[in-house]
Amino acid sequence: MKYFTTVNDVADANDLVHEALQWKHSPFASPDIGRNKVLGLIFFNASLRTRMSTQRAAMNLGMTCMVMNIGNEGWALEFHDGAVMNGKTVEHIRDAAAVMGLYCDIIGVRCFPTLIDKQADYSESVLLQFMKYSRAPLISLESATLHPLQSLADIMTIRECVDVKQPKVVLTWAPHMKPLPQVVANSFAEWALHCDYKLTITQPAGYELCEDFTRGADIEYDQEKALKDADVVYVKNWSAYNAYGDMPSVEQNWMLNDEKMKLTSQAKLMHCMPVRRNLEVPDALLDNAYSLIMKQAENRIYAAQAVLFRMLQTI
Amino acid sequence: MKYFTTVNDVADANDLVHEALQWKHSPFASPDIGRNKVLGLIFFNASLRTRMSTQRAAMNLGMTCMVMNIGNEGWALEFHDGAVMNGKTVEHIRDAAAVMGLYCDIIGVRCFPTLIDKQADYSESVLLQFMKYSRAPLISLESATLHPLQSLADIMTIRECVDVKQPKVVLTWAPHMKPLPQVVANSFAEWALHCDYKLTITQPAGYELCEDFTRGADIEYDQEKALKDADVVYVKNWSAYNAYGDMPSVEQNWMLNDEKMKLTSQAKLMHCMPVRRNLEVPDALLDNAYSLIMKQAENRIYAAQAVLFRMLQTI
Amino acid sequence: MKYFTTVNDVADANDLVHEALQWKHSPFASPDIGRNKVLGLIFFNASLRTRMSTQRAAMNLGMTCMVMNIGNEGWALEFHDGAVMNGKTVEHIRDAAAVMGLYCDIIGVRCFPTLIDKQADYSESVLLQFMKYSRAPLISLESATLHPLQSLADIMTIRECVDVKQPKVVLTWAPHMKPLPQVVANSFAEWALHCDYKLTITQPAGYELCEDFTRGADIEYDQEKALKDADVVYVKNWSAYNAYGDMPSVEQNWMLNDEKMKLTSQAKLMHCMPVRRNLEVPDALLDNAYSLIMKQAENRIYAAQAVLFRMLQTI
Repeated sequence: MKYFTTVNDVADANDLVHEALQWKHSPFASPDIGRNKVLGLIFFNASLRTRMSTQRAAMNLGMTCMVMNIGNEGWALEFHDGAVMNGKTVEHIRDAAAVMGLYCDIIGVRCFPTLIDKQADYSESVLLQFMKYSRAPLISLESATLHPLQSLADIMTIRECVDVKQPKVVLTWAPHMKPLPQVVANSFAEWALHCDYKLTITQPAGYELCEDFTRGADIEYDQEKALKDADVVYVKNWSAYNAYGDMPSVEQNWMLNDEKMKLTSQAKLMHCMPVRRNLEVPDALLDNAYSLIMKQAENRIYAAQAVLFRMLQTI
Repeated sequence: MKYFTTVNDVADANDLVHEALQWKHSPFASPDIGRNKVLGLIFFNASLRTRMSTQRAAMNLGMTCMVMNIGNEGWALEFHDGAVMNGKTVEHIRDAAAVMGLYCDIIGVRCFPTLIDKQADYSESVLLQFMKYSRAPLISLESATLHPLQSLADIMTIRECVDVKQPKVVLTWAPHMKPLPQVVANSFAEWALHCDYKLTITQPAGYELCEDFTRGADIEYDQEKALKDADVVYVKNWSAYNAYGDMPSVEQNWMLNDEKMKLTSQAKLMHCMPVRRNLEVPDALLDNAYSLIMKQAENRIYAAQAVLFRMLQTI
Repeated sequence: MKYFTTVNDVADANDLVHEALQWKHSPFASPDIGRNKVLGLIFFNASLRTRMSTQRAAMNLGMTCMVMNIGNEGWALEFHDGAVMNGKTVEHIRDAAAVMGLYCDIIGVRCFPTLIDKQADYSESVLLQFMKYSRAPLISLESATLHPLQSLADIMTIRECVDVKQPKVVLTWAPHMKPLPQVVANSFAEWALHCDYKLTITQPAGYELCEDFTRGADIEYDQEKALKDADVVYVKNWSAYNAYGDMPSVEQNWMLNDEKMKLTSQAKLMHCMPVRRNLEVPDALLDNAYSLIMKQAENRIYAAQAVLFRMLQTI
């Protein structure tokens, strides 16, 4: 595996989920495969779980990490081909990416969307330039449209904790006070559908996700209807895809609560974190026994480890 | 040892001092105990000595480090239980701490006081929340009230360099131009008294420390009287504890000088650094043969190593 | 080798170039020499290539790295001896450097010039204070006047890729929109001349470099004349040395182009990067087959590795 940026980069997603669960049971089963190998973690944006879990995964495999915070440690990068660089950008992505690829055996890149330029974001212009100019295998640490390490950990968590044959999985929009990327929702939909889960997405009008990622899911604008008989409820806020980056006004209260959870079939609760407590989800739900949020976070280590291991096998 | 946040976390402080001195003589005596173990160093505040000496200590034991600068690398954290997070904070400490505890075998946290909210600071609200929500063993890298790694290194240094049976140890306030925490003074007093040193604290009126840490010390408002026959003079500035965070005006010149040092019994000079030269202490004293400041800094490695080793033994 | 700050620190520069090329062919030939050794990388300024290539080199030799960004991770440092530190600086360089030397086996320091205080810059006041106060071996990661790791990689690259007996090497000034240090030009001149290359330097009037570094080179104000029969063209912008830090106006267009390259003897093109594309050098040249910029960047690893190895042998 040379790239890990979407579920489509994975030949056999269910096998990868299985491997990730195996790493969880024996994290130090292959301590030498990463010897003399360097993982470069390149952050255009802040990170806690991804930063730490990926380092942990690399260390479990014997790799060394180099962390680089673009912006406060390096140079402002130029992304336009042919640009006359007489402005604020100091180095072109084609040079920076190429050089990083020389210094690292595997590169991880986090590059959030602008939420302004839909075309640039949804064409993954930054990530694709990294892949084009760097010869190294590349892992998305969350891009403009997808967050595959999170989704792999999410599917692992369902596999691990939801003991229902054909679980009904519901992805529900939640309130927020500022516009967030659609990334986690896109990515969870993509992975859940690819892994053959029955997925229902519920959101207020105006918050429809990009169909490229949701094709095959049931779309239900009535949250309570959607929650009915759910085995898994994945909560997440996102801003509008159509009126890109906007926050169309919402009349109803979309925050989950105990009443709504009672509509489900004793569903497990999921959220990728960071979570704004009592704005997106109430404390009482997040800290309930049915909450899987800490499992999801823990599984981030083994998701990253499974991906790194596959890459290390081929370099 | 699961926690190292105060001398009271240590069953046998004098033994720990002894062990730390042994690590200094053979730093690589146990290169494998840290294999496959990760130390997470979480900084809410700037750090040089603590950051580097603790990494060095971990490396001497074969551990891997992950450094995380909250604020410029991660998310703004929320500390209030039950908060509706519709403001600037992105993640609650209960989630962030829990997650870090999943990724690290041991966590170190640096969290300075506000110097505004005395109650929050002296209840160690940040540190205690970390301990409450993270399952991992935790080392204070300097908290709102104490700096135990510094104090352990300080006591090591006295043990190593002061060849007097019952040395008279004097902690003296020094001038500064901005309000500093009481942390180092509290902590040195706590450790010195716990280790049965005869401690005199001298400060201008208004700069009395919290009695919880100084009970058992002689308090002397006349600096020259205090210095008389001292074997060790520990210099440090701190702001007021009573009029919390204030800098009550001081008439006399409290900066040490050669004349004052002559009152002592050829005392050694100590300071935890960073030191504002010629404001807190004159160059001539800091660079004198009796200055132990570089020994203190060097011993920071072995203090951290002794603590890490004890923790590694129990996980 | 205790210091690596200029070609004059190297007894036998040509041998070091040769060793660096050998490391390139077997980077893992000495995986244990760095065991239990720590390299501290201290950055006063941003860095990409130097930061990552030096970490990579250390890792190839089995060393552990600690990276410290002064300013956003540590304290503002004071550089004046005898200063009464009642301003913004929190710690004196004599203390900070000494302490870092205690925690690291080798220190690397990046400290750019001010471009304002010529005397301070050209006396290397920051670097020399580090060397004076820290007992550890020290590598310049680019100082106020020189960038020896870059130059060693540059000479390696010429040795590796230019198959001409006595190549004509031309260092040409290029346009820019803000004042840059003279560092890379000084350093390349120093190394090229020391290694007995025939060096021509071409620049507009007003941009003459400091003669301490260029003595022995041909100075030619006519760029086209200079380029004639060149085997290597090294492109770089720098601000004025005489009218220090200024950018005297330049009438002609000094940017290289295809026409100018045709004057050369099928010259190879070099640049240290980061390069402002289409301002300093056109895309078409940088991405041409004769461009060595990626080789230079790659060789940064092995230049650093050769230097670290020599230092490790003596500590």
